[in-house]
Amino acid sequence: MTLLQETIARIRPLDDQAMRKAQERLDNLAIPRNSLGRLLTLARTVAGITGNARPSLKHKVIFTMAGDHGVVEEGVSAFPQQVTREMIHNFVRGGATINVLARHVGARVVVFDLGTAADFTGLVAAGKIVNKKVAYGTQNFARTRAMTRDQAVQAVEAGIQAVEEEAPRGMDILGLGDMGIGNTTPSSAIIAVFSGRPAREVTGRGTGIDDATFAKKVEVIERAIALHHPDPADALDVLSAVGGFEIGGIAGAALGAAARRIPVVVDGLIATAGGLIAAHLAPQAKDYLIASHRSVEAGHRVMLEHLGLQPLLDLDLRLGEGTGAALAINLIEASVKIMIEVLTFQEAKVTEGCIAPPGVQL
Amino acid sequence: MTLLQETIARIRPLDDQAMRKAQERLDNLAIPRNSLGRLLTLARTVAGITGNARPSLKHKVIFTMAGDHGVVEEGVSAFPQQVTREMIHNFVRGGATINVLARHVGARVVVFDLGTAADFTGLVAAGKIVNKKVAYGTQNFARTRAMTRDQAVQAVEAGIQAVEEEAPRGMDILGLGDMGIGNTTPSSAIIAVFSGRPAREVTGRGTGIDDATFAKKVEVIERAIALHHPDPADALDVLSAVGGFEIGGIAGAALGAAARRIPVVVDGLIATAGGLIAAHLAPQAKDYLIASHRSVEAGHRVMLEHLGLQPLLDLDLRLGEGTGAALAINLIEASVKIMIEVLTFQEAKVTEGCIAPPGVQL
Repeated sequence: MTLLQETIARIRPLDDQAMRKAQERLDNLAIPRNSLGRLLTLARTVAGITGNARPSLKHKVIFTMAGDHGVVEEGVSAFPQQVTREMIHNFVRGGATINVLARHVGARVVVFDLGTAADFTGLVAAGKIVNKKVAYGTQNFARTRAMTRDQAVQAVEAGIQAVEEEAPRGMDILGLGDMGIGNTTPSSAIIAVFSGRPAREVTGRGTGIDDATFAKKVEVIERAIALHHPDPADALDVLSAVGGFEIGGIAGAALGAAARRIPVVVDGLIATAGGLIAAHLAPQAKDYLIASHRSVEAGHRVMLEHLGLQPLLDLDLRLGEGTGAALAINLIEASVKIMIEVLTFQEAKVTEGCIAPPGVQL
Repeated sequence: MTLLQETIARIRPLDDQAMRKAQERLDNLAIPRNSLGRLLTLARTVAGITGNARPSLKHKVIFTMAGDHGVVEEGVSAFPQQVTREMIHNFVRGGATINVLARHVGARVVVFDLGTAADFTGLVAAGKIVNKKVAYGTQNFARTRAMTRDQAVQAVEAGIQAVEEEAPRGMDILGLGDMGIGNTTPSSAIIAVFSGRPAREVTGRGTGIDDATFAKKVEVIERAIALHHPDPADALDVLSAVGGFEIGGIAGAALGAAARRIPVVVDGLIATAGGLIAAHLAPQAKDYLIASHRSVEAGHRVMLEHLGLQPLLDLDLRLGEGTGAALAINLIEASVKIMIEVLTFQEAKVTEGCIAPPGVQL
């Protein structure tokens, strides 16, 4: 078996017993029944994922996976490709938003080069970023497939290895984010293929995009799908036709974490595209995914619907890097602390309501 | 001038200059323009409130204000009144949800007795809770006004004093929460009066409430409004007719914080009812309020619309205590750190996009 096949085979269903035990405690907390809404279901989900009704989320990790995209040749991005490299230097310096938010929530950030067009020999040697480069950027998928099938497997397996190598340093929850100029285009293409929706419905306009730019981006995605006929039943075919190396890496990291029963928190459009690839490679992996936020990108809503995930936050974010995931990790940690630390009616010597409390606050 | 009048007179408009300075930095962060959505507007708002484009939110405080309600005689609550007292003991023990979440976000909780039906001489003497008791619970407003106008003023001024007394210990942001069996009934009554909407549209059904209980609660609110004719143009009249002591205390704390340029984070239905009283006493105070979350309580949506506030979180919470405010304070702190710590394009040596970046992620 390949590493990918072996990893998929290791992904188990959520742990029913841990979830029942968690639910029992949640139902007995000295609060009106269900009065903490999604925080309670979240805590229960983490119990099911980890197989532990008293999970510890001490080691919080965010992977920011970077790649470049040949399709930027088509003029689909407002930023030049060199910004991918410049932002990686910014991550290493600790001055980017993901650094600030990771510090805020007590997470460590690990930056991976899955396939940027830049050379990071110095930073890799210094241990500042991890080299998992498949190639110096994908091909322009408006003309030819983004990558070969072998490269698609290599990107996904690099993501699995990333988890295997980082987990021994401590990893109780994993946030997945991205960096890569032009990577909303492959992400929208991926959800177009999986959902069967027309490109214009899953392509982002963002704030201030003009009709001409939007039309160009949509046309590029339509052309690529017509050219390569990616097969929605074959996630590796989709990834190789219209994907990106960092998207493959994110998919692999999701699979690797799921195989280790580690909760996976996906960031916005690009990370969720990686989550889609993972869920199509291993349907069971879907249960390990937690959607951090709803991006303003049109395609992201469709992705979340497709995965059946409800996002925790809705703050009009569209930055990427793992920023939404960092904020969500903080909420997930809060939910777990509630499950473990809030006293039950008995422990707190509080009289229980005579009926499952209605719209009445305790 | 009374303390209340003097406090209202001290509330100034937001600081335009600080907001302009904040916006200038936010526009130059090395991220696509506006790609952090509401986190950016939030940071700017905090700059305007504090009058500081580099505000510090080191000292985070949550006031949990407690009171009892004569209207529970009508059978509108699933919990007996003694639970107010029991929960205060739970707060002091550190075993309630607000304690867990405040620890999680690094906030200190201060518990105030604004008018519970219980005696806390021991806890007050030990400095565990702060005594601001107006009376041992309100009157049953289904039969007579909840409190006199003097008591309404006393409750609001107690909230102002609470801020004056606690601020010297450090208070950079203030979350406002509640505890009081039966207090969704006065809260719904308050928004019914201010919005002019029928009681049934602003009264919560929560999960599992049966039609009979809902009808009873609605009928009690309708009867009270018909009986007392509270004047929506006179917030003290509304508070005395159908309010609660903790709701008055919350209103006063909001005014006191606004007068000191401290951001005020309101929790759910009850705290927002306090915010409504504050905003009707001093329209300027509205600008100092930040809505933490959208409660599942029907009346809360109407309150937020009435105040023109958009909540940060939507997690189906309805616990109170200040729990939603604690989580929101963490997001607000994140937004301020972004404004201060994320490097600008120049500082990070990142090439700026040629146009205000569209739906493209950097």
